[in-house]
Amino acid sequence: MAPAGGPRAKKGILERLENGEVVVGDGSFLLTLEKRGYVKAGLWTPEVVVEYPNAVRQLHMEFLRAGSNVMQTFTFSASEDNKESKYFEHAEEAVWAVEVLKALGKPVAATMCIGPDGDMHGVSPGECAVKLVKAGAAIVGVNCRFGPSTSLKTMKLMKAGLAAGLEAHLMVQSLGFHTPDCGKGGFVDLPEYPSGLEPRAATRWDIQKYAREAYKLGVRYIGGCCGFEPYHIRAIAEELAPERGFWPPASDKHGSWGSSFNMHTKPWIRARARREYWENLLPASGRPFCPSLSQPDV
Amino acid sequence: MAPAGGPRAKKGILERLENGEVVVGDGSFLLTLEKRGYVKAGLWTPEVVVEYPNAVRQLHMEFLRAGSNVMQTFTFSASEDNKESKYFEHAEEAVWAVEVLKALGKPVAATMCIGPDGDMHGVSPGECAVKLVKAGAAIVGVNCRFGPSTSLKTMKLMKAGLAAGLEAHLMVQSLGFHTPDCGKGGFVDLPEYPSGLEPRAATRWDIQKYAREAYKLGVRYIGGCCGFEPYHIRAIAEELAPERGFWPPASDKHGSWGSSFNMHTKPWIRARARREYWENLLPASGRPFCPSLSQPDV
Amino acid sequence: MAPAGGPRAKKGILERLENGEVVVGDGSFLLTLEKRGYVKAGLWTPEVVVEYPNAVRQLHMEFLRAGSNVMQTFTFSASEDNKESKYFEHAEEAVWAVEVLKALGKPVAATMCIGPDGDMHGVSPGECAVKLVKAGAAIVGVNCRFGPSTSLKTMKLMKAGLAAGLEAHLMVQSLGFHTPDCGKGGFVDLPEYPSGLEPRAATRWDIQKYAREAYKLGVRYIGGCCGFEPYHIRAIAEELAPERGFWPPASDKHGSWGSSFNMHTKPWIRARARREYWENLLPASGRPFCPSLSQPDV
Amino acid sequence: MAPAGGPRAKKGILERLENGEVVVGDGSFLLTLEKRGYVKAGLWTPEVVVEYPNAVRQLHMEFLRAGSNVMQTFTFSASEDNKESKYFEHAEEAVWAVEVLKALGKPVAATMCIGPDGDMHGVSPGECAVKLVKAGAAIVGVNCRFGPSTSLKTMKLMKAGLAAGLEAHLMVQSLGFHTPDCGKGGFVDLPEYPSGLEPRAATRWDIQKYAREAYKLGVRYIGGCCGFEPYHIRAIAEELAPERGFWPPASDKHGSWGSSFNMHTKPWIRARARREYWENLLPASGRPFCPSLSQPDV
Repeated sequence: MAPAGGPRAKKGILERLENGEVVVGDGSFLLTLEKRGYVKAGLWTPEVVVEYPNAVRQLHMEFLRAGSNVMQTFTFSASEDNKESKYFEHAEEAVWAVEVLKALGKPVAATMCIGPDGDMHGVSPGECAVKLVKAGAAIVGVNCRFGPSTSLKTMKLMKAGLAAGLEAHLMVQSLGFHTPDCGKGGFVDLPEYPSGLEPRAATRWDIQKYAREAYKLGVRYIGGCCGFEPYHIRAIAEELAPERGFWPPASDKHGSWGSSFNMHTKPWIRARARREYWENLLPASGRPFCPSLSQPDV
Repeated sequence: MAPAGGPRAKKGILERLENGEVVVGDGSFLLTLEKRGYVKAGLWTPEVVVEYPNAVRQLHMEFLRAGSNVMQTFTFSASEDNKESKYFEHAEEAVWAVEVLKALGKPVAATMCIGPDGDMHGVSPGECAVKLVKAGAAIVGVNCRFGPSTSLKTMKLMKAGLAAGLEAHLMVQSLGFHTPDCGKGGFVDLPEYPSGLEPRAATRWDIQKYAREAYKLGVRYIGGCCGFEPYHIRAIAEELAPERGFWPPASDKHGSWGSSFNMHTKPWIRARARREYWENLLPASGRPFCPSLSQPDV
Repeated sequence: MAPAGGPRAKKGILERLENGEVVVGDGSFLLTLEKRGYVKAGLWTPEVVVEYPNAVRQLHMEFLRAGSNVMQTFTFSASEDNKESKYFEHAEEAVWAVEVLKALGKPVAATMCIGPDGDMHGVSPGECAVKLVKAGAAIVGVNCRFGPSTSLKTMKLMKAGLAAGLEAHLMVQSLGFHTPDCGKGGFVDLPEYPSGLEPRAATRWDIQKYAREAYKLGVRYIGGCCGFEPYHIRAIAEELAPERGFWPPASDKHGSWGSSFNMHTKPWIRARARREYWENLLPASGRPFCPSLSQPDV
Repeated sequence: MAPAGGPRAKKGILERLENGEVVVGDGSFLLTLEKRGYVKAGLWTPEVVVEYPNAVRQLHMEFLRAGSNVMQTFTFSASEDNKESKYFEHAEEAVWAVEVLKALGKPVAATMCIGPDGDMHGVSPGECAVKLVKAGAAIVGVNCRFGPSTSLKTMKLMKAGLAAGLEAHLMVQSLGFHTPDCGKGGFVDLPEYPSGLEPRAATRWDIQKYAREAYKLGVRYIGGCCGFEPYHIRAIAEELAPERGFWPPASDKHGSWGSSFNMHTKPWIRARARREYWENLLPASGRPFCPSLSQPDV
């Protein structure tokens, strides 16, 4: 299977999912553009699209090169046959939004920013999924607020909720940060939010694991949210290259599982050019005065 | 002191340093472009300049917006009145390079990639500094291989070595990663190098501290190396805005010390809109199964 | 309230609990005597009672001085009006044991070594409590296998299970080790068991918190199991001295909340002679190469 | 080599050292008796000897069973042919003490409570050792204040100081707590001192390593100080059993390197019955909200 650009034919997301394809989402726009100097933290408003279009275009390009099939966040659904409603904390609101979009006659993807404990009124992930599908959503899932493994726990519960005869495609777009310690409100309640999250950032290997586990769970739309840099999206695309049948363009600059380190001059670095090494690495923080977990503010 | 672009007059770096100005360097090119999908880890060759000039131009732009006075790495000394020789592990080689450049009649900046334990032959930082200045370097310092606080320890020793009558400007360009646990060879010998360094990444607040301490030590050329993203450079420029007399352009998208969070809807996040909060935060890694420090491979 | 020995009148445990008194249990025998050189780890057999009776007597004495009302473990129920059945992993077996003891016409205390996830067959703590009370237990609770805060979570669930009309006294005897990371089988499945548990050992302040929370939850028999040293038992007795109306004998050698440090020659150590200091201390492990949590073996 | 009691012939410590024997010291009295309820923290006065002689006798017995050749702390030099002067922070005072004892015509052991940075006036460990030997000490070393690996660093420097023609036996009695983060004043300046040191407690395996490294360095009097429980002393005696030619009495209750776990009913615990397992274990703290290292108060 040679690295290749993959099928460029213009197909809708829902059509791809119905065909059994994997759809690779994109990643973080606001947090990433904040670090590049173009978006203001706190308000997170998207005027950057008008003010610095080149910076936005560059980031879109990076996600596409990384293997993403979609261009969503700032350009508001580039693939016009699909409407997505997202970032809902309450099942009730999400249901209204789905009903409105559904009335427009389009297939709807609905994601909520909830964790395993459910929405702010105590509606469980399973019940949320049921409500959204009954309201008409064709794709349901979660985005933002929670890290990779926490988001997959929520997806598992959503899937279990749908077990009783209801059908929908599953979608996950987790944070690029580990948040095993967050409460119902997710990472915004952690003391590190939003400008001290660095030590929580996922490695590319963490994301390959996330992609594989999401796939095993039956999730076919797999992307990221805040903290997902282009190389994290590439990690999804590389992990699922066997299933998709092609490699992302940016893999021409990436030795899968560190294979490119085998040319290094130092033998102990060449010894890192293998999957087992990176799969089992427990990376240190270099911060012995800091804790592993935090107490959320609420 | 209003946010502003700062003096754009074309002045050489040495001239600025002679005038007592602070020069803000730029940051990471190879590691950052690797994460954006344009450079291959392991070989780290710079053909990206030819292959993807827009991606390189975009990153240069981000560093300039962040407050950098220089454009060095890929475009080989945009400010033509200065020659820099860098990335030497051995004092002897560094001295040869300085002598050659000096013979060309240009002012020379010489940085070494050493830590507090000195070069690979056991030459201490103080002795290295003396050798470089005697060979003709006008600016001496360190770049890469070691994190912010480790690099400043080395600078302290270099400065002490020069105490005996020799004069030079000081320059520091540390990693954007914390490496208190690395040995003589620096971060390349840590097991996390190069694709598991995420939990070591410095926050912007770590870098403000680094900039202030470097300044207090008498260092006037302050920049970064691998792992230094544009917002880290902005952190240097913001910390030293009082001394420089102006803010970097990208501060129009940054509430200094989190001040922009005071508009957030949640009161506990508004409570983070103050310097004391971020200055004292000990950020958690979200990785309770990982250690704080690693054993270097050599 | 002066430090004092407390009421010595010979009363049965059940009688004390019926009177609304707090009963302070004792602590660790096998693990503690192993560290003192008298018991062999792995088999944990109690022949020490015969082989080294002085060592056992000394430890009993220490627990009594620390404020314990009972002498249980090795001497098999010194207070003869009470029979305790304990260390059951399965609700079913525990029920049989209670029924047998009950048939002997004695009040029965039944504790299980389960955590919040319930017994090995998936019977929840609430259901276990119900089964034990229906079988005739007058006192129900947990002992061993899980640390202080985990054990209290289990007690909360037991209490909730009993909410529906059933009555019993509650009893908790947690480990003296923190085990937030253990699975259903408890600390024996952690890789540190049994000879690498040191960094998990509770401080006296952790145990004061445990005693207070247990009391608030309505638990009135509060003791410890493996890892509970005499000073941990004293911490229970000191925390609940206001409720019990007397201090344990060993408090004549203990400045409550570090008050005795106020005579230290160094001012920064005198500054530690106050409750807030110790209540809020987050003690470091001195082990930067070690993780915070482990993966249980099963 | 069968477990055995070892030679009981009454020999002086100096005589043993001259014969090339290893002398195993004893461990912690004040801190250990505090935890058992007999000594008050802060003042650390030894009236326990009069008040609770059985408790003191019991602890002496435990150290002897663990393999210690000496009975020092509370009974003031049971082996009457030897005088030890210890717990000096300043080389000058230590020298006076040695001179006085020397004048009494006895061989003198002199230990200081210093770390690798030397005494409070900046006298290095090497210089301290030289001063003590010149004053007449036959045995020099360190005790208390610093953990195992830090104390061995100091011993290395003392030994190097004595390299120039001076002769003395070496002695080390480290804390039973890890203190890589302490400053010149040692563990008393750490925020955990004295009642929050639990997570720093050494395992028996840490102490076997300490004993082996001390031996390799040429140290022949190897014991412990605060935090050294009887099983830590046994760990020294077991590690050096091949050199001493006998096992300590308490090894009849200890399967060396966990060998007794091979009878456990659970296979994954039986798998821990081997040296490699415990030698390589990195024990977790169970405290994800706590740091690895602390900042000393001074």
